[in-house]
Amino acid sequence: MAFAPADPDFEARTRESFAKQGAMKLLGAELERVEPGLVQIGLAFRPELSQQHGFFHAGILSNIADSAGGYAGFTLFPADAGVLTVEFKVNLLAAADGERLTAVGRVVRSGRTLTVCSLEVHVDKAGKRTHCATGLQTLMSLVGRAGVSG
Amino acid sequence: MAFAPADPDFEARTRESFAKQGAMKLLGAELERVEPGLVQIGLAFRPELSQQHGFFHAGILSNIADSAGGYAGFTLFPADAGVLTVEFKVNLLAAADGERLTAVGRVVRSGRTLTVCSLEVHVDKAGKRTHCATGLQTLMSLVGRAGVSG
Amino acid sequence: MAFAPADPDFEARTRESFAKQGAMKLLGAELERVEPGLVQIGLAFRPELSQQHGFFHAGILSNIADSAGGYAGFTLFPADAGVLTVEFKVNLLAAADGERLTAVGRVVRSGRTLTVCSLEVHVDKAGKRTHCATGLQTLMSLVGRAGVSG
Amino acid sequence: MAFAPADPDFEARTRESFAKQGAMKLLGAELERVEPGLVQIGLAFRPELSQQHGFFHAGILSNIADSAGGYAGFTLFPADAGVLTVEFKVNLLAAADGERLTAVGRVVRSGRTLTVCSLEVHVDKAGKRTHCATGLQTLMSLVGRAGVSG
Repeated sequence: MAFAPADPDFEARTRESFAKQGAMKLLGAELERVEPGLVQIGLAFRPELSQQHGFFHAGILSNIADSAGGYAGFTLFPADAGVLTVEFKVNLLAAADGERLTAVGRVVRSGRTLTVCSLEVHVDKAGKRTHCATGLQTLMSLVGRAGVSG
Repeated sequence: MAFAPADPDFEARTRESFAKQGAMKLLGAELERVEPGLVQIGLAFRPELSQQHGFFHAGILSNIADSAGGYAGFTLFPADAGVLTVEFKVNLLAAADGERLTAVGRVVRSGRTLTVCSLEVHVDKAGKRTHCATGLQTLMSLVGRAGVSG
Repeated sequence: MAFAPADPDFEARTRESFAKQGAMKLLGAELERVEPGLVQIGLAFRPELSQQHGFFHAGILSNIADSAGGYAGFTLFPADAGVLTVEFKVNLLAAADGERLTAVGRVVRSGRTLTVCSLEVHVDKAGKRTHCATGLQTLMSLVGRAGVSG
Repeated sequence: MAFAPADPDFEARTRESFAKQGAMKLLGAELERVEPGLVQIGLAFRPELSQQHGFFHAGILSNIADSAGGYAGFTLFPADAGVLTVEFKVNLLAAADGERLTAVGRVVRSGRTLTVCSLEVHVDKAGKRTHCATGLQTLMSLVGRAGVSG
């Protein structure tokens, strides 16, 4: 499905907002693709991102999946609109065992108030790619409100 | 509901596993309560945990909620069992604007293979406590398997 | 938590809307409690409500859980507002094996646009009550719009 | 993704189980496609399937989505295995306003114990097809157990 962004400067606006997120910096997440209705975030493994078995922590994985979806919705919003995650759900399909995570958020439905995204996460290990999580997310656009509320 | 843990040393086992999680250390999460079927995790605010508006990042919040639920289930497992998050879902009820997050995971149903937990997160700001997220989570116990698979 | 309904005639308005739902009639669902922010729906077993093993069908159970939550939110809405289920999630905790299902929807957060409900379903069999499902639901109020959109 | 069913008679076994579901008969649901890892269910509109505005009831829609996913998983199970819905989540994308619903369940991950499916529902009205719901579902296979438990 092709989406027309309300703001022609959607990419710069998305990159600027991402750069302000202390949490993405702390994790080491990188903004890899910014397209109308699609955002991809990559994350290289470090021991600080692990759970007790040395794989990527499921919560870390969900964290970048949530951000990928949130920014996918954000690309389609007007220039003065903020984004709020209303809810999201993630199914963990396989251990996130590898060198790098790639999370892709895609807008499934773009509404005036609510946007729904699908979330897919893959992990790469020694040249093999595994689908390790799938999710769904509901976003709210907050037109004219920099703050976050519902 | 009262649960009887299969392993009398559940608290030490839970604290030991938590201490091995690089991700919890990176965030600065603290294990505050470990009871049969209930775990509470606290997290003090730092700018590195923020989203673009300076509140706790929803993904960080979900991260500690997932861990609180995972360890709540873990308290009831046999000594040789690992825990795997099958899926979780979080509804964000209010901006996580404050000095400290408190996430509580509670076992709702404890089964042989699957365990279901409720997740509740509150944020404290200047003495006022706000319910900022609610969630549900499905866990799988991996008896005799240190590794993680489904 | 106590909620103040925007419309003092919330009970009559809720019962009237419920009575218009062909689906609730088809299933044989009964509106048992209508309070501010809380609705309870009961459903007696009939073979037509079964899955392949003769228990209540999980989809039927989810159907009345969704309705209980939707009407719980509806009780708090202004008189001219419609209700839309944005999304819901249900965890099935035990087989719905029994004579009667009771689904309770409770408002957890009541916002201007979005309302979040918790959903709990119990089944009664020969005097024993079993907690068979738990869920979460996001609703949208559609002020001044009889129709349904997002 | 191509899946190899464990039971070559998967189609007959799936159709037989579906025919035993009182709930599917009550709704008037039809089993339209049965392939390895994919099941499609159709449902023609009748006033008995409506919510208060005369569209398909969201709970009815979720009901056939849950069944489509459950049977999609069932196609891949061994001949002696039952299926249990562990949990599911549905996002309603548009009003289910039309003559016919089509729900497709697709296996995303097929594991020894757990199977994850995606759920998509479309509605047809006067020759126009609208994507009205998307969902995710976790199933459990119950090998050698005709009954349903977790």
